[in-house]
Amino acid sequence: MAKRPKIRGPLPPGSTIGILGSGQLARMLSTAASRLGLKTHIYADGPGSASDVASATTIAPYNDYAALDAFARAVDVVTYEFENVPDATAAELAKYATVRPGPRALAVSQDRVAEKTFIRDIGLGVAPFHAIDKADEIAPAVASLGGACILKTRRLGYDGKGQVSLADDDAAAAAKAFKDLRGAPAVLEKRLAFAQELSVICVRAADGTVRHYDIPQNTHGGGILRRSVVPAPLDPGVADRAYDMATRIANALDYVGVLAVELFDLGPNVPAAERLLVNEIAPRVHNSGHWTIDACQVSQFENHIRAVADWPLGDAERHSDAEMCNLIGDEVNAWRDLAADPDVALHIYGKGEVRDGRKMGHWTRLYPRGTRGAT
Amino acid sequence: MAKRPKIRGPLPPGSTIGILGSGQLARMLSTAASRLGLKTHIYADGPGSASDVASATTIAPYNDYAALDAFARAVDVVTYEFENVPDATAAELAKYATVRPGPRALAVSQDRVAEKTFIRDIGLGVAPFHAIDKADEIAPAVASLGGACILKTRRLGYDGKGQVSLADDDAAAAAKAFKDLRGAPAVLEKRLAFAQELSVICVRAADGTVRHYDIPQNTHGGGILRRSVVPAPLDPGVADRAYDMATRIANALDYVGVLAVELFDLGPNVPAAERLLVNEIAPRVHNSGHWTIDACQVSQFENHIRAVADWPLGDAERHSDAEMCNLIGDEVNAWRDLAADPDVALHIYGKGEVRDGRKMGHWTRLYPRGTRGAT
Repeated sequence: MAKRPKIRGPLPPGSTIGILGSGQLARMLSTAASRLGLKTHIYADGPGSASDVASATTIAPYNDYAALDAFARAVDVVTYEFENVPDATAAELAKYATVRPGPRALAVSQDRVAEKTFIRDIGLGVAPFHAIDKADEIAPAVASLGGACILKTRRLGYDGKGQVSLADDDAAAAAKAFKDLRGAPAVLEKRLAFAQELSVICVRAADGTVRHYDIPQNTHGGGILRRSVVPAPLDPGVADRAYDMATRIANALDYVGVLAVELFDLGPNVPAAERLLVNEIAPRVHNSGHWTIDACQVSQFENHIRAVADWPLGDAERHSDAEMCNLIGDEVNAWRDLAADPDVALHIYGKGEVRDGRKMGHWTRLYPRGTRGAT
Repeated sequence: MAKRPKIRGPLPPGSTIGILGSGQLARMLSTAASRLGLKTHIYADGPGSASDVASATTIAPYNDYAALDAFARAVDVVTYEFENVPDATAAELAKYATVRPGPRALAVSQDRVAEKTFIRDIGLGVAPFHAIDKADEIAPAVASLGGACILKTRRLGYDGKGQVSLADDDAAAAAKAFKDLRGAPAVLEKRLAFAQELSVICVRAADGTVRHYDIPQNTHGGGILRRSVVPAPLDPGVADRAYDMATRIANALDYVGVLAVELFDLGPNVPAAERLLVNEIAPRVHNSGHWTIDACQVSQFENHIRAVADWPLGDAERHSDAEMCNLIGDEVNAWRDLAADPDVALHIYGKGEVRDGRKMGHWTRLYPRGTRGAT
């Protein structure tokens, strides 16, 4: 069967968005699509709660080409909720459907060395790093970076998995950490004394239009996002620099959809042009943008759907200040109390089993615009 | 099989809400349930777009008792999106599941004479009316009411269907209109010169807690709601009177869920105690509350789900002023332009076929709280 023609103009209501993955991001993408009269079809290698709000689900391995082909033919565009879509899977889907964001975004975001190299190559800052492929590269890398470091796998890390923090100049610990990775290629990064962590959630349409949400300040614990507060305390010039960085990344990737760019802000004592460094990018809707559901007219989820379906982008303005906190593992058991809190918008992801470190839900508190924000 | 125990305390995430009906109200109830980690199971006598965001669907007639029994056993509570649920259907479901709102709300809202009588009996005002069962009751009723009237079927009317407006004292036209109903029992109501139409969207929990959304001013065209603007221009005393009326109705019905009370406001020249009359009630989420999705932290849909699932009610405060307009029939074809309007939150219901008078979607414009409202 021939490849279908490329998407031209907005997919009309009644069209179907194919989504790889069936976690909470796919779930919130599905409900966002439903607002626009669009259906969703989930493809995942196991059951997940996104299927509760999707019109169809395919459960099959990501290397089942017959299932991938049937899925691609059944939908009008394909997107995904996670960046670790195998290259071969994306290529197979692309035979029969437009896949958005495109293969370059996946390639860059799947490999930390490719990602950092790409970002540096387009003139943006990243923390100093060395690729580590062999054990004997560790000692010189530690010596070269100086101070505290983080060893990360190049591929397949998320929510702090595949990362080890290392104290100052501790080459022995670094060598042990690399050994524990059993030969997986890694990257050694300098650990920065940043003033705050930020993220830019932006959306880019196929015609090149880019919109940004206001920038949250993010707090992590154990490598997992715990809290995002918007707006982050930033001079307008610094915020504009952050928006510009995200736009340059999106444009360089000819990106379509929501892109999250996580940044380290080294603080006001660092020259403006060097103050913001890119930590990592995510070619998808992002946990630090969940507050947009409650604080914006058009959420990151709806804007992602709009972008991949070739609709006009929605407004990214926020009507309220907001604080978002994740409910991780058994924190979700507080749902009764949270539901009774009049100031909380509660979101539970419908995952069956509570597990340590698993994102089970989140809550958002709204404040009148301009009255709140991180400090 | 024995009836399951009554719901005690909030239904935990993962529970299933059964919904009768598969239109836009059921669809928006389903996405609201998903925010709370709850699943939905749709039961309807034909396919509808609510199934696109539900985890299960049963399509069967409303008098298929085997299908109703299986549905009631498969879910944790049953609710509905339309008031014309047949008595026998509700009674069958109640054998195996809690049905909310309860049978009294259905009985009262299905019959315009029962409804008006109930409202009058609890001490609230309605437009003068006469039940019409036989043709020879028309002339005396027209003479008794005086002025312009509306003849309505007692049962099964919605969106202006089953209604005929009659000019002053025109008994002949009334007789013809009644004949056109082919013997269906009717009610003749006095047509009032109201200043504005309002609605109170309130939610009542099983423990008797009641919350109200701010009151919109509603504009109808051809018997169909066209536009709701919130807040309506009302002195606080009048608004409090409206809230009190809705609370009395909800309490008298021992109601659980969202209740809509449509009111005529006869204006400031009428004494305060007589100024507001009840037009009709709807034992369900209501079109004039759609703005709550975008202007409130917890929408009418989520609050209905919370109430029927025995969760604590959510806050009904609005963070923004709002204007909601329906997209009726081919008005939905403007979706491309509406999607490009940065001030519009667009909602398309995913109904396949555009038909005259069919509600296909709506849009909401938000304004900073206190800057807008009906005049």
